[in-house]
Amino acid sequence: MAGNESIYEPLTVETLAMRLGGIVAITDRIGADTTKWRAKEVGDGNLNLVFIVSSDTGSVIVKQALPYVRLVGDSWPLPLKRAFFENHALLRQADRDPGSVPEIYHFDEAQALIVMEFFTPHIILRHSLMAGTKHQGMAAVLGEFCARTLFRGSDLSMVAAARKADVALFADNVALCDITETLIFSDPYFDAERNHHTPQLDTLVAQLRADIDLKVEAQHLKAKFCNNAETLLHGDFHTGSIMVTETETKIIDPEFALYGPMGFDIGMLLGNFWMAYFAQPGHAKSHGERHDYQTWILEVIDEIWRVFSAEFSNLWRHERTGILYERSLFEDQGHALASEQALAHRLRDIWQDTLGFAGVEIIRRTLSLAHIAENDTIENEALRADCEARGLRFGRQLVVNRSRMNSMATVNDLAQIIAAEAKQ
Amino acid sequence: MAGNESIYEPLTVETLAMRLGGIVAITDRIGADTTKWRAKEVGDGNLNLVFIVSSDTGSVIVKQALPYVRLVGDSWPLPLKRAFFENHALLRQADRDPGSVPEIYHFDEAQALIVMEFFTPHIILRHSLMAGTKHQGMAAVLGEFCARTLFRGSDLSMVAAARKADVALFADNVALCDITETLIFSDPYFDAERNHHTPQLDTLVAQLRADIDLKVEAQHLKAKFCNNAETLLHGDFHTGSIMVTETETKIIDPEFALYGPMGFDIGMLLGNFWMAYFAQPGHAKSHGERHDYQTWILEVIDEIWRVFSAEFSNLWRHERTGILYERSLFEDQGHALASEQALAHRLRDIWQDTLGFAGVEIIRRTLSLAHIAENDTIENEALRADCEARGLRFGRQLVVNRSRMNSMATVNDLAQIIAAEAKQ
Repeated sequence: MAGNESIYEPLTVETLAMRLGGIVAITDRIGADTTKWRAKEVGDGNLNLVFIVSSDTGSVIVKQALPYVRLVGDSWPLPLKRAFFENHALLRQADRDPGSVPEIYHFDEAQALIVMEFFTPHIILRHSLMAGTKHQGMAAVLGEFCARTLFRGSDLSMVAAARKADVALFADNVALCDITETLIFSDPYFDAERNHHTPQLDTLVAQLRADIDLKVEAQHLKAKFCNNAETLLHGDFHTGSIMVTETETKIIDPEFALYGPMGFDIGMLLGNFWMAYFAQPGHAKSHGERHDYQTWILEVIDEIWRVFSAEFSNLWRHERTGILYERSLFEDQGHALASEQALAHRLRDIWQDTLGFAGVEIIRRTLSLAHIAENDTIENEALRADCEARGLRFGRQLVVNRSRMNSMATVNDLAQIIAAEAKQ
Repeated sequence: MAGNESIYEPLTVETLAMRLGGIVAITDRIGADTTKWRAKEVGDGNLNLVFIVSSDTGSVIVKQALPYVRLVGDSWPLPLKRAFFENHALLRQADRDPGSVPEIYHFDEAQALIVMEFFTPHIILRHSLMAGTKHQGMAAVLGEFCARTLFRGSDLSMVAAARKADVALFADNVALCDITETLIFSDPYFDAERNHHTPQLDTLVAQLRADIDLKVEAQHLKAKFCNNAETLLHGDFHTGSIMVTETETKIIDPEFALYGPMGFDIGMLLGNFWMAYFAQPGHAKSHGERHDYQTWILEVIDEIWRVFSAEFSNLWRHERTGILYERSLFEDQGHALASEQALAHRLRDIWQDTLGFAGVEIIRRTLSLAHIAENDTIENEALRADCEARGLRFGRQLVVNRSRMNSMATVNDLAQIIAAEAKQ
C-alpha cells in the first residue's frame, strides 16, 4: 500500500490515512500515528479532489486528479495524467521563482496524487476580491512570478535541447489544452451547448456573436495559444489559482501547464482583476462603498504590468543565456542598444497579447461554461448583468483594439469610463 | 544481414549489394541477382551518403546518414536519427501533396538508411538555374506543394491531438534545428568561426554587422523559427532540394523537418530564386545574354506566390477542419465574410514572414558556412562579389522592411532596381 498501489483509486476521507500512512515525506511532517490525522475534503475547483490532512504537528495538502471533470461529472472524462503535468510544472516554477508555489512532498503518478505544502491561513484571492480585502506586496509577487517563469522557461534562457524536450513532454497535455481551446476561444463566440449567461445579456451577446472583427481576432489569439510555444505557461492563472494573506501571495494549480505565448498567463490574470473591478458594485453595501477598492484593483493591475516589465527587462539584461537575441550578436559587439531595441519590441508584443488574452478571458467567463464567483454571487440578476455587460464591452475593446492601445493608463481609463457610463 | 543489422555501418559501393541484396522492396524493383546491380555514390549535398543503385530492370536511391556533417568531417558529429525524421517527413508530404516527393521503398532506422524512388532524368534545380534552363509548370508545383503541406500539416487541418503528438515527435530533431538556428540566424551577423565571404565584400559585410535594425529583425525571425510551431516544414527548401526535368518538378531531402512558421519554407525557396536572379550576370556568356532568363526567374517567383496564395485560400475555404478558425464560428453562422477576413490576415502574416526568411536566407548563403553554387562558380571574384552584394542589399531590405512591402510587384521591382544599379 502506502502510495505505491498500481491501480488508481480515488481517496476518501476514510481511506486516506490507511493509504498514505506509510509515506515518509508525509509522516515526517504530520507524524506516523495516523489515528491523530484529520482529513478534510476541500476541493472547490472544477476538476479534482483536494484534502487538507493535519495533525498537531503540521498539515499537508493531498491533491488527487479524478478521471473526469468534477464540475460536470463522469460524462466528461479527463486524463489522470494532468497530475503528472502539475507535478512537472510545480517543479519548474519552484526552480524559476523560488518560494512562489507549494513545495512538493510526494508525487504518485499511478494514483495521480500530489502531496504538497499547505498554505495557511491563506485564502483564495478571488474570495478576497469579493470581500474587498487589500493585499500588501501581492502585485509585485505576481508580476515577478510572470516575468521569472515566462523568461526562464523560454529560449531566452534555457538550453535549446532541454526546452525542445520539455515542449515534447508537455505536448501530451492534450485534454487540458482542449478545454482551454474550446471553452475560452471557441464556445463563447457561438451558441455552444455548454454555454450559459445571465438572461438580461441576450441582446449584447447576440451583438458580440455577430461581431466579425471580434470573432476573427479571438481566433487569431487562439492560433497564438495553439502554435506559439514561447514558454512554459501556468495555463490557468486566474485569481482562483492564487492564495493570499494580507502580506503573502502564493500560486497554485498549474495542471493546465503548456508551452504557449508569453502574454497568456498575464492576460488571464489581468482579465480576472478587471472582472473583479467591474463586479464591485454587486458587492457594495452602499452606493460608492467599493470606489476606493476599485481604485486599488486598477492600481494592482498597473503595478503587475510595471513589475513584470521591469523584472522581464532585468532578466533580459542579465540572464539572456538562450539561443534567442544572443549577447554574442549584441552586447559583445558593442551593440547594447540593439539588445534594448529588441527588448522593447518583445515587450510590445507581449503587451498586445496580454490585452487580447485578458479580453477573451473576460468574455469566456461571462458567456461560456465556467463563470466567476464575483459575478455569480450577485443575487440581483439585473445588477449582475450590468456588471457583466461592462466587462463584455471592455473585453471586446481589448480583443479588437489591442494593437492600438499604448499604455496601461489608457486601458485603465477605458475601464473607468465604461464603469462610470454604467452608473448613469 | 539484409538491412536488419543492428550495428550501424556506412555503406560503400562495394558492400552495398551484399548488405541490401535480401530486401524485397529493392529486389522487386532491380532484381534479386546482385551481380547485375550497379552502385554509384553521388552525394553532392553537405551531409549524407547517396547511392544510385541500378540494374537493367530499374533503379533506386539509397540514402544513408553519416554520424557527422559530410561537408565538415567527423569533427562535427550529427545524429543518425535525421534519417528517421526524413522518413516521417516524406510520408507526411506524400500524403499531403501526392506525387511531389520520392516514394519510400524501405526504411532501416538502425542503419539510418532510406531506399527510395530515383527520379531520372531529373537534375538538381540549382544546376539548371546556372545553365539558364526554363521549366514548364515548375512554379505551380512548388506553390501547390507549399500550400498543401503547410496547410494540411497545421491546426487548420489536423486533429489537434495528432498534431500535438507530431510536434513532440519532431521536437527531437534538435541537432538539425541547431544547424539552422546557428548558421542561418546567428553566424552571419557576427564574425563567427565558420563564416567566409568573398573578400571584396568586406566593407559591406562590416556595414551589415553594424546594422542594428537588421540584426534585431533577424533575431525576431529566429524567435519565430524557434517558437512558432505552426506547421510541419520541409526545413531546407532551397533549389538544391528540388529536382526537375523540363516539365516535371520533384521535392527531396526533408531531413531538417520541424514544426515552425509557415513562411519559412516559401521564404527560403524564394530567397534562393532571388539569389539565382542576382547571380545571372556571372553566368552570361555575353553582356545581357541572361536578361530574358532573369525575367523568367522573377516570373517564377511571382507565380509561386500567386499559386501558393490561391491554393492556400482554396484549402482554407474547403478543407478547414482543424481547431483554428472553425467553420462553426464563421460559415455556419452565416459569416463567410469573417472567414475571408481571417484568411486575408493570415496570408498577410505569411507574406511578411516569407519576405523576412527570404532575406536572412540570402544573407546567410553569402556570409555563413554554406554558400550556393550559382555564386561559388563565378570565377571572376570581383564579378562574384558584385552579384553577392546585390543579393545582400536586397536581402537586408526584405528583412528590415518586410512589414511595409505590399506586393510581389513591389518586391520584384526592388530586385530589378538593385540589379540595374549594379550594372551602371
